[in-house]
Amino acid sequence: MEVALLSFTPEPELIVAAAARLSFSSIGAIERRQRLRSEQVNSLLGRLLSSGHLSPFEHASFTFALDGISRVTSHQLVRHRLASYTQQSQRFVSFKELNFVTPATIAAKGNLKAKYRELVRASHELYRQMLDDGVPAEDARYVLPNAVETKLVMTMNARELMHACSLRLCQKAQWEIVELFERIKAEVAKVAPRIGAELKPKCYHLGHCDERDGCGLFAPRESPVN
Amino acid sequence: MEVALLSFTPEPELIVAAAARLSFSSIGAIERRQRLRSEQVNSLLGRLLSSGHLSPFEHASFTFALDGISRVTSHQLVRHRLASYTQQSQRFVSFKELNFVTPATIAAKGNLKAKYRELVRASHELYRQMLDDGVPAEDARYVLPNAVETKLVMTMNARELMHACSLRLCQKAQWEIVELFERIKAEVAKVAPRIGAELKPKCYHLGHCDERDGCGLFAPRESPVN
Amino acid sequence: MEVALLSFTPEPELIVAAAARLSFSSIGAIERRQRLRSEQVNSLLGRLLSSGHLSPFEHASFTFALDGISRVTSHQLVRHRLASYTQQSQRFVSFKELNFVTPATIAAKGNLKAKYRELVRASHELYRQMLDDGVPAEDARYVLPNAVETKLVMTMNARELMHACSLRLCQKAQWEIVELFERIKAEVAKVAPRIGAELKPKCYHLGHCDERDGCGLFAPRESPVN
Amino acid sequence: MEVALLSFTPEPELIVAAAARLSFSSIGAIERRQRLRSEQVNSLLGRLLSSGHLSPFEHASFTFALDGISRVTSHQLVRHRLASYTQQSQRFVSFKELNFVTPATIAAKGNLKAKYRELVRASHELYRQMLDDGVPAEDARYVLPNAVETKLVMTMNARELMHACSLRLCQKAQWEIVELFERIKAEVAKVAPRIGAELKPKCYHLGHCDERDGCGLFAPRESPVN
Repeated sequence: MEVALLSFTPEPELIVAAAARLSFSSIGAIERRQRLRSEQVNSLLGRLLSSGHLSPFEHASFTFALDGISRVTSHQLVRHRLASYTQQSQRFVSFKELNFVTPATIAAKGNLKAKYRELVRASHELYRQMLDDGVPAEDARYVLPNAVETKLVMTMNARELMHACSLRLCQKAQWEIVELFERIKAEVAKVAPRIGAELKPKCYHLGHCDERDGCGLFAPRESPVN
Repeated sequence: MEVALLSFTPEPELIVAAAARLSFSSIGAIERRQRLRSEQVNSLLGRLLSSGHLSPFEHASFTFALDGISRVTSHQLVRHRLASYTQQSQRFVSFKELNFVTPATIAAKGNLKAKYRELVRASHELYRQMLDDGVPAEDARYVLPNAVETKLVMTMNARELMHACSLRLCQKAQWEIVELFERIKAEVAKVAPRIGAELKPKCYHLGHCDERDGCGLFAPRESPVN
Repeated sequence: MEVALLSFTPEPELIVAAAARLSFSSIGAIERRQRLRSEQVNSLLGRLLSSGHLSPFEHASFTFALDGISRVTSHQLVRHRLASYTQQSQRFVSFKELNFVTPATIAAKGNLKAKYRELVRASHELYRQMLDDGVPAEDARYVLPNAVETKLVMTMNARELMHACSLRLCQKAQWEIVELFERIKAEVAKVAPRIGAELKPKCYHLGHCDERDGCGLFAPRESPVN
Repeated sequence: MEVALLSFTPEPELIVAAAARLSFSSIGAIERRQRLRSEQVNSLLGRLLSSGHLSPFEHASFTFALDGISRVTSHQLVRHRLASYTQQSQRFVSFKELNFVTPATIAAKGNLKAKYRELVRASHELYRQMLDDGVPAEDARYVLPNAVETKLVMTMNARELMHACSLRLCQKAQWEIVELFERIKAEVAKVAPRIGAELKPKCYHLGHCDERDGCGLFAPRESPVN
């Protein structure tokens, strides 16, 4: 798996802070932006976060190139609807080589791992044979397993990144998408440390765990209101 | 493939018309709704459509149970972001039997069809063996092919149905998702004939074909503006 | 202010439950729906809510006619982007009579109330004079105050209703939009009591108050994580 | 009215092109991006546009500070739901001075212009008097006219900018929002000329006019399909 930050709103935290201050002030947002110091930005972002005023975080966007994730994970990923995706097509691209993901639970058992690898290989062989026999790539791919790697370009704003991470950094999410968002978090943290620090599982926001059989990081809620 | 209309906004076309008239009138929408005759509704919907005022069509929603589509098609489907999906999980469900889709281009060649069936069978066998060996279902499924059937509940409003059909009823879309939306269109047409009639490929709306190597239904645009 | 439930997904809670069960089962959603008893529906909805699995609630939509709210409130309302709105136009409708909203804080002071009423009257008089002098309604309306009443048709699904209510039923929201959502809640509760019961301010979900100078219903969070 | 481009995805057209090529290729998007020359970018963007493959344009976002627009226009603007807004609050800000917009149709008539100005002045006077008498700003503002200026920070991606401009650059849109999007277009054109050139009224995309009593730029459709 490879995660590269292709592009992002320059000075993302400053933009969030400038937008947030606009709402309560009377002079130009542009001027104000230059007057904000990094301590002020940090402090303002902290207040927005602790009071749940998250909409200014939408003004900062991040664009990632995601490579080497399975179709299992890309299918989960694109369920986040408040984001933009461009995915490598299996309709128009013929795969001469086939990269695939092997879950650790399978790799750990030599016996299964060999059979798994063999089955993926056999799928690819049949796929190529079908292409040779005139089956279109878009149909031949029906034989390819979920394990096959895909790549995407994804753009998500900071508010939606917080939301997606609240779900996908939870230990009950599947390992591959957890790893994906851990890497995304690491990339964001390099260029926007305050936002990066906020990319964490939902229990940190809730103050309790709402999963059955949680990981133990937070206790379940004592007196459920719902 | 099975498509059932599970539920929908009652009197969907009347609701669209009542909403559209609100914008230009001065008495209660509720009263007005009762005064609208079906000819008036039809005529009003026609005017909205020909002038591109599509937002009132968002007030009518349709909920479908979709069964027996491949993971190829469910992955394409959920890319439509202005809709709601609940999909059968491959994480928590273990599949004792495995239904799968066979593209006609493969089924047409006896030789390939047998190999295809055999490979799907072998995938399922390994899948079950991995489950027996303690691999979680969410990991064992990496070996399952795209062909495996899935099911979803999907809710989409009439405006987005028009948009999705404009793309997915085009003959350049893949056959399985074309069939899916043809069935969706047929279900909608039973309860909302005017809306159903509007579910058609984009060329009908554009008045020309914007695909390379189109199907010939409409000619390409003569003098491209772009 | 008048709030009427114009239409809604029939059997809304049953549809949510049927969709939620699909994800973990292997037979048709339609059949299953008929087998669900109301206790089961209630219990299933409770589990979805307490575990934060809210997406199945998107399958139930509610369409309201909202009348007699000020432009202050309609401007706040349409900021909720996951909903559909058709609003009475001030561009194409000329208002012979002008209904308007008077905040209680103004109505309480006889002196101000009279001046307020007089100013709205004067605005309307100038508005009509401008129309008579050939100014288009869309321009004449610039003189109309925020207090002027408007009407909308709004469609929102149950998940977004929960979210909007979490913000707008908070006592820190403005009184008019609080009242609007209280009436919306009352309408939903009549036809979907379990969903209606879930329409409540964010503090109930959080278990604490995240506003400065809260109303006291819930205490602030003791040890802020953010 | 003042429109400033606060921030944007660096090299916006290159990002769109890099994303679009990913879908059909097999090496890293990052490398590829460096290999793209500006002629290639232009040509690729042209192909995406003429074939209606607009989703890659979502990867480029633009953040604007908009100042000095009336509440009429901000209410219209925020109806575009696929964008992010932070608006100056009339709830928490007390306006000592009141800037307002005067439509040209009113300014052109000396008689009306004076009355208009006087009425806005009287509104502001009553507003301030109410504040002095202890009415909260959020209620006192009910007396303020639509003409009052507001400011926003808005982030919109290039695809939605094209859509919004297709509606708001049409001569049937109201003059103030037409002017707003003309300025937005001008700002975009400075940093992304190919995208800027694509910000134009819907008739250019349709090849005909779908408004009643159009401006004459394009003729109505000859044989309506709808």
